[in-house]
Amino acid sequence: MSKQLLSIVNPVDGEGACCAPLVCEPLSEAEAGELAPLFKAIADPVRLRLLSLIASHEGGEACVCDLTAAFELTAPTISHHLKVLKQAGLIDSERRGTWVYYWLNPGVLERLSAVLGPRVTAAVS
Amino acid sequence: MSKQLLSIVNPVDGEGACCAPLVCEPLSEAEAGELAPLFKAIADPVRLRLLSLIASHEGGEACVCDLTAAFELTAPTISHHLKVLKQAGLIDSERRGTWVYYWLNPGVLERLSAVLGPRVTAAVS
Repeated sequence: MSKQLLSIVNPVDGEGACCAPLVCEPLSEAEAGELAPLFKAIADPVRLRLLSLIASHEGGEACVCDLTAAFELTAPTISHHLKVLKQAGLIDSERRGTWVYYWLNPGVLERLSAVLGPRVTAAVS
Repeated sequence: MSKQLLSIVNPVDGEGACCAPLVCEPLSEAEAGELAPLFKAIADPVRLRLLSLIASHEGGEACVCDLTAAFELTAPTISHHLKVLKQAGLIDSERRGTWVYYWLNPGVLERLSAVLGPRVTAAVS
């Protein structure tokens, strides 16, 4: 992810609530072009559930065997959706023995969240 | 939007930071089915920029004439993208004289943001 995108989703405007980057000022063509594929990757019910199953699984990672068991879909279909999420940079994976394990790449969902919504950047005393 | 979805994106867990709904527990099939079309609507660079142009425009609304001027696209193409955003419930519009004006439906982006990211629900003294 570029420095430009990181800067727009992590606005530095002091303490307290700030408006969402998307609302503060118009997104540039480059920023929108970087964000759209990430939203496209999560714009599918199966992929949203896969992300959520992985993220909420004990230890923050899930075996592909845990994931396929949650759907009435074939293993190749689940693998396809996992590949889309991985290619978009939302998740990563590693083979350990028989199974492949998946986890969320840190910060990606938070960055998407921060683009869309206002953030409270610090507690106010 | 259903009460079920509203409840998952507005978790009540006391003061301070809470984890993102998508990370706290697996999204249900129904929840994922409601969220996916909203993410799909914003999963396009032109639609992301349109949303941002509307949201960041003075007074929180923009004339279609302001929007078409920002793109090297035909008016029918811009109209198509605005229609997709409106059908998904992200924006609404009203004709006033010659022009149609658009604004963001309140709360929709915030709800999408809240599904993906942790929220600080209250300031801590």
